[in-house]
Amino acid sequence: MPQNTGKGSSEGSQSRREFLQRIGAVGGVSAVYQAMVTMGLLLPGDAGAIESRQRWQVGASQLAQEDKPLVAVLGGGIAGLCIAYELKKAGFPFFLVEAQGRPGGRSHTVRNGSVISEVGSDQTCLFDAGEELYFNAGPARISHHHSNLLAYCRELEVALEPFVNDNRAAYIHSASAFAGQPKPAKQVIASMRGAIAELLAKAINAGALDTDIGFGERAAVLQVLRDYGDLSLSYQYNGSTRAGIAPGTGGLSPGAAEPALDWHEIFNHPDIPFIANFVEGYNQSATMLQPRGGMDRIAYALANQVQESAYYGVEVTAIRRTASGVRIEGRTPEVSGAAEADYAIVTIPPSVRRNIPNDFSSAARSAIGAVQYANPTKIAFQSDRFWEREDEIYGGISWTDPDILQMWYPSGGLGQAQGILVGSYLFGGSNASQFTNLTPQARIDLALNAGAEIHPSLAAHASRGISIAWSNVPYTLGGWAISSPSSILQAPDGPFLFAGDHLTYLRGWQEGAVVSGLNALANLTELIA
Amino acid sequence: MPQNTGKGSSEGSQSRREFLQRIGAVGGVSAVYQAMVTMGLLLPGDAGAIESRQRWQVGASQLAQEDKPLVAVLGGGIAGLCIAYELKKAGFPFFLVEAQGRPGGRSHTVRNGSVISEVGSDQTCLFDAGEELYFNAGPARISHHHSNLLAYCRELEVALEPFVNDNRAAYIHSASAFAGQPKPAKQVIASMRGAIAELLAKAINAGALDTDIGFGERAAVLQVLRDYGDLSLSYQYNGSTRAGIAPGTGGLSPGAAEPALDWHEIFNHPDIPFIANFVEGYNQSATMLQPRGGMDRIAYALANQVQESAYYGVEVTAIRRTASGVRIEGRTPEVSGAAEADYAIVTIPPSVRRNIPNDFSSAARSAIGAVQYANPTKIAFQSDRFWEREDEIYGGISWTDPDILQMWYPSGGLGQAQGILVGSYLFGGSNASQFTNLTPQARIDLALNAGAEIHPSLAAHASRGISIAWSNVPYTLGGWAISSPSSILQAPDGPFLFAGDHLTYLRGWQEGAVVSGLNALANLTELIA
Repeated sequence: MPQNTGKGSSEGSQSRREFLQRIGAVGGVSAVYQAMVTMGLLLPGDAGAIESRQRWQVGASQLAQEDKPLVAVLGGGIAGLCIAYELKKAGFPFFLVEAQGRPGGRSHTVRNGSVISEVGSDQTCLFDAGEELYFNAGPARISHHHSNLLAYCRELEVALEPFVNDNRAAYIHSASAFAGQPKPAKQVIASMRGAIAELLAKAINAGALDTDIGFGERAAVLQVLRDYGDLSLSYQYNGSTRAGIAPGTGGLSPGAAEPALDWHEIFNHPDIPFIANFVEGYNQSATMLQPRGGMDRIAYALANQVQESAYYGVEVTAIRRTASGVRIEGRTPEVSGAAEADYAIVTIPPSVRRNIPNDFSSAARSAIGAVQYANPTKIAFQSDRFWEREDEIYGGISWTDPDILQMWYPSGGLGQAQGILVGSYLFGGSNASQFTNLTPQARIDLALNAGAEIHPSLAAHASRGISIAWSNVPYTLGGWAISSPSSILQAPDGPFLFAGDHLTYLRGWQEGAVVSGLNALANLTELIA
Repeated sequence: MPQNTGKGSSEGSQSRREFLQRIGAVGGVSAVYQAMVTMGLLLPGDAGAIESRQRWQVGASQLAQEDKPLVAVLGGGIAGLCIAYELKKAGFPFFLVEAQGRPGGRSHTVRNGSVISEVGSDQTCLFDAGEELYFNAGPARISHHHSNLLAYCRELEVALEPFVNDNRAAYIHSASAFAGQPKPAKQVIASMRGAIAELLAKAINAGALDTDIGFGERAAVLQVLRDYGDLSLSYQYNGSTRAGIAPGTGGLSPGAAEPALDWHEIFNHPDIPFIANFVEGYNQSATMLQPRGGMDRIAYALANQVQESAYYGVEVTAIRRTASGVRIEGRTPEVSGAAEADYAIVTIPPSVRRNIPNDFSSAARSAIGAVQYANPTKIAFQSDRFWEREDEIYGGISWTDPDILQMWYPSGGLGQAQGILVGSYLFGGSNASQFTNLTPQARIDLALNAGAEIHPSLAAHASRGISIAWSNVPYTLGGWAISSPSSILQAPDGPFLFAGDHLTYLRGWQEGAVVSGLNALANLTELIA
């Protein structure tokens, strides 16, 4: 018998499932949980999801085939796709309905010939065809601790590569700092560290912290601060090679440290000190990952597993409760129809779901109505990779003032001739509203104009701009929830279960969609039991 | 005429060279330099190398074909290969002699079937065959500002990908810290930032820095420190989600911050505070890169360009001066012989070069004799990627006590079943000497035993260990120079020119080899002129 390589062999899953069923018949859920730990079937990461996965897998393994209900999965984004995939692996009858003609929902990767449809405009992507010439219009990075999503990538052999989130050669720019000159992040960060270490060393040497730092450890603390800030022997920050080296030095001669930036200018700026800390965040710190070739590789890998039970291009027009379950009404451009099921797991975003006639409870309807949304926007261009050749920028993010806020350089295809540059990414708010209200051409003009503050030659290189304003996209109508997840919607509502990243504290992350999907599946098994 | 795609078209180079020759004939070097800037032929990076490249390209472009001398290139590491490639592009007659049977020198990537030969031992690599199952026994990362090396990667279409140097999920471990428990780097770094920000805020609030921080900016500075350290409203560091979230939280419920580590324990440790700053360094900060599939992709790409003029497996036995140039004596296992040339560019490492009979000047001989070497060591294992599944570590480096110092996780092939783990990397010093003196099996035992302090299950996963101690490798006899570059060897010595990373301040980096090679070529053109 071949060794189980961990490559998602259904053979291995089947025998494990049988084994767990036998254990469960004797020792119940806790015995099964212990067995799963021993067998290495549980993943690290968010404990809530481990528990959900355990409840789902144990519950499903204890159901006889004839007791498995028919489940309707509404929505074919990451939540709906992973739910459908789990249902299939567990042998449940199910069908998935998705309004758009493709899987993935907001996990939309745009390439040559892709169309971005917004209310009032359609844009066709004119990038050249090419493995690395893609634009992740929705989610574009995965944290290393998004373990449930990454487990699907492993299981379905979606190739992963590092996503460069922290690039010290990328720029920090503001019209109101450094005379409007973009500075490599390494200069700003080295100056902040230098100033903080210098000020603290000064206070310590003046005896201001003697109650915190014993006389015996003062020398050690000062030594640590000197290295932390790259300070001089007299504990001053006079610049550092960490900030880069001066032109005309290095190589055959020693590199001369870039001088310090004025820390007052940094610390008094409304944005820059916070920008410099961004990559320290829980969901933003290294290692970040991406699928090679585009984020939608994950959605398609899941979709390929469930394609015989998935219906694309079918808009749900009503979600009804029946005496014994649910009735889903839907339509294509040509026909209308309905299908019945025992349960429905609804992953259609609340922004859209609230406008579909339904038989949810009034508490659920009210919770769905209360979800508030961010309105993020992005724009991307094809360009020769001048940022690599001329600026030594390989992946990562430059930051500027809020009109375009960020430019993202591709982490894939490094060294190739052409690449896709994200010319702006706005998380939401008033600048995003303004961007949303522009025509596609006006967005291009804005991004090229503002981007020239960072890269003066931008417009000479970048072309074929294509943009998205998520609040304008039908079947999505927003980027991600900004209100807290509803505990009402985390629980079943009769035959209805809900899923989507908006039900987690990982809002806007695909991992949140997976975690919410596992929760819905866990709840489903308890509805049945 | 097709557009020049920047993909190293020799057609483009030829017409540019002719154009520059015409300009040079009229305006001399400075006119050519300006033209090159305008044409975008100069790269950013170390200005010294830009100047060398310019001197070489302009000088070479101004030579008539019949004036180009025959050049012997001794050594087929990165320095020798890039020199040979430049000579070829410029139409010079040349030959390259390399003692080993492969190009690359220290840039040696070990795969299934590769042999690591040391004085007294040969190890054959037993890794499975596979694109990602390689061990970079020598250099293993490239800084984003190693622009001259990266330019060759672009020109020769060597696929590049991010190298994860800074992974906040990798561990920092010491027997003398945290009760010997490995801690994710994010916990250590968040605690250091928190402690530094908390102490400084306290000093500021006590008025200890009023001469540095004006009353008007105090609030702004405190606000910056709160975000810098993720402090509480009362400016205390009580842990942070930046350090990770507590087990059992996150996902469906809010993530609870990991508590603070005792900063006294960190600051009083002899190594940990410095380890945490490592990736701030000029040559270590993001973005770092690697060729996809192994570092030797660069060496082979260069070697493929010059294969008709390269002789492998030929050991140089004497480097002689003749009336009109040089005579290179050499031997294979079968035969001995000699070849004459007008000039020799000697890239054989000083550690080896000083033992070859030669006619260098006494000043050069003395400089070569004075070069001191580091004795780094590495060991690698094949393993299933348990660190990804169980520890959420994707690439990067864990640090531990000096017996093995570092473990490196692969940055390529993320999510695959198997990977190559570097079980130890010692830069040099007494621990490296001890490691060097062990048998291959004893090195394996040491690395598995010490590595278990970080990954208790290491020995159950890792196998097929293979190690290298660079001071023991024939034709290399060391890792990199630790003494300062010799200005004597940066200049020509009669018909001899020298190259190698040891002649730069980028010792141990392939970029140093390239920079030194461009310097030798620049000097060559001036010898001829």
